[in-house]
Amino acid sequence: MSAIENPFYSPEFHGEYDLVSIGRLDLEEGGSIPDCHLAVATFGSPQNPPILVTTWYSGSHQIFREQYIGEGHALDPSRYFVVVVDQIGNGLSTSPHNASGANADIAMSAFPHVRIGDDVVAQERLLREHFGIERLELVVGGSMGAQQTYEWAVRFPDKVRRAAPIAGTAQNTDHDFLFTRVLAEAITTDPGFAGGEYTSNADVVAGLERHARIWGVMGFSTEFWKQRVYTGLGFDDMDAFLAGFLQPYFTAMDPNDLLCMAWKWQRGDVARHTGGDLAAALGRITATTFVMPISEDMFFPVRDCAAEQGLVKGSELRVVDDVLGHLGLFAVNPDFMPQVDRHLRELLETPGR
Amino acid sequence: MSAIENPFYSPEFHGEYDLVSIGRLDLEEGGSIPDCHLAVATFGSPQNPPILVTTWYSGSHQIFREQYIGEGHALDPSRYFVVVVDQIGNGLSTSPHNASGANADIAMSAFPHVRIGDDVVAQERLLREHFGIERLELVVGGSMGAQQTYEWAVRFPDKVRRAAPIAGTAQNTDHDFLFTRVLAEAITTDPGFAGGEYTSNADVVAGLERHARIWGVMGFSTEFWKQRVYTGLGFDDMDAFLAGFLQPYFTAMDPNDLLCMAWKWQRGDVARHTGGDLAAALGRITATTFVMPISEDMFFPVRDCAAEQGLVKGSELRVVDDVLGHLGLFAVNPDFMPQVDRHLRELLETPGR
Repeated sequence: MSAIENPFYSPEFHGEYDLVSIGRLDLEEGGSIPDCHLAVATFGSPQNPPILVTTWYSGSHQIFREQYIGEGHALDPSRYFVVVVDQIGNGLSTSPHNASGANADIAMSAFPHVRIGDDVVAQERLLREHFGIERLELVVGGSMGAQQTYEWAVRFPDKVRRAAPIAGTAQNTDHDFLFTRVLAEAITTDPGFAGGEYTSNADVVAGLERHARIWGVMGFSTEFWKQRVYTGLGFDDMDAFLAGFLQPYFTAMDPNDLLCMAWKWQRGDVARHTGGDLAAALGRITATTFVMPISEDMFFPVRDCAAEQGLVKGSELRVVDDVLGHLGLFAVNPDFMPQVDRHLRELLETPGR
Repeated sequence: MSAIENPFYSPEFHGEYDLVSIGRLDLEEGGSIPDCHLAVATFGSPQNPPILVTTWYSGSHQIFREQYIGEGHALDPSRYFVVVVDQIGNGLSTSPHNASGANADIAMSAFPHVRIGDDVVAQERLLREHFGIERLELVVGGSMGAQQTYEWAVRFPDKVRRAAPIAGTAQNTDHDFLFTRVLAEAITTDPGFAGGEYTSNADVVAGLERHARIWGVMGFSTEFWKQRVYTGLGFDDMDAFLAGFLQPYFTAMDPNDLLCMAWKWQRGDVARHTGGDLAAALGRITATTFVMPISEDMFFPVRDCAAEQGLVKGSELRVVDDVLGHLGLFAVNPDFMPQVDRHLRELLETPGR
């Protein structure tokens, strides 16, 4: 029950970022993080209109730096101040594996349950107290980042002018809950997991690899595998792709950190604000909203996203076509970012609310 | 490495059936089953025109007795002689857990790899030598039963007048291979599995339950869970459904038997007859063929089935609408069997080849 080293969670793999304390964060489920740190990467001048980008399961700000942000993209640092905040538990912000100092008592298996709402409260405090940001031109994120985007738009409607939830839902579905449980079980049933008190993520490599292979079944589309899209990414066959991409991607990570995010993902639900009434919760949104599912997503399918979009006043459904499915979010398909950029540019060109 | 008892594989749970020896079965992968027994259930007079029904992963003849066969169904014993043959490894036919006597040397982890083609060769021998059947009015089966149906139509075109592969493919997809591997890993990574030398399936209950929960993610559709279809089946919530239906369904079964079938499923491929040329293999089919995918199937999706159907001369695509997805095959949705019966009746009314 003390923090452990994991070299993956460093600037070597995630580029430059700041670690900012927002102090004590009391949590929806009870308990607190005594000294909550959020990892933040910013792009552009703080004088520009601010945009918040939220992160997904297993992700960090770095994929946005590499793929989503820059000149030529909608998230253009010459026009906006783009702030990417890493979610709690992602290994860079305060997380089970790195909880030390004031947070030493919540390290590893002692880490408390965190909800999407806790992340959004933490982010709002960070933006206001550290950056002086009171209102956002846009909140955008994919997958769990979409959960945070919806939570922002429902919880702080006056602070969000525009919202773009990509490949995610406002209220997690039962099917997603089951999928995430299967992912978590692949980790927790590895004897090396030791109830969360392993001494290195390497102890849990077998479970992390199984977890990666389950992502292989659900993360891409059936058509991704059929078309052998991975050959275009430099892999000769599906096992080379798993061994060379998906497995090392996840085995570098911390098991408890992944489980912290998985628990949060399972329970994302803006209807907690309205006694379980999803329509009432989404009815609170005043942001101009583009709901952007990915066409081949197997666990945030278009129809689930479209059903929620129908409950957001004045919103639009903008489907992103990608045979990669959910993990199209990595933006390795050259057709992906042009679509995302086009939709986000159009959204940013609307007056907003 | 000796056979073990499992009371699930008995007439108490599978109704009456015969166990017929077809003698030594040499296998495509090498090795042999010294004294291969096939479990068979028949319906109707042997004087009627014969129909063969093949079984799916984890299934037996019993689901067909309960749901598919009878007066009022297309598979009507007053008109046809319906023969359901249990696949090798399903726990009733010769299988890892029950290999004894002449088969004692291939019990449990020593059981050889069996292919879809081995099953079809065994079935052909059984039908010819035991029942005197030389030509079938229809071969029909779902999932792995569809794999066997395609194999029959390609391997023995002159013996199959009509074919109806339901919710399955002639050439297993890579995505299905990955899915099946994840299923198998849930079992083999249970410490109780002990390399296949457990003393009771109860030793592997944790792995079998994980295996069941993975079925929960892929076996039904996202919409099945969203619409809470299980409430109509008498379960209050998703965990009650898993605990009351899917988990006990699989924990009753033998781990090695499931793995035998999983290995076979992964490698189903009629193109083995034509040096890997799927179009050439399917081009051999002379049976009048209705290809019948289930609309919401997540791992034998309609488009995969439709692509193969396009390679079978004179075939038709008959999509069965069912929100249950692949496990719609259990025929618990009252709209399922009427669709299947309608298609099979129309097929049986064609002249056949």
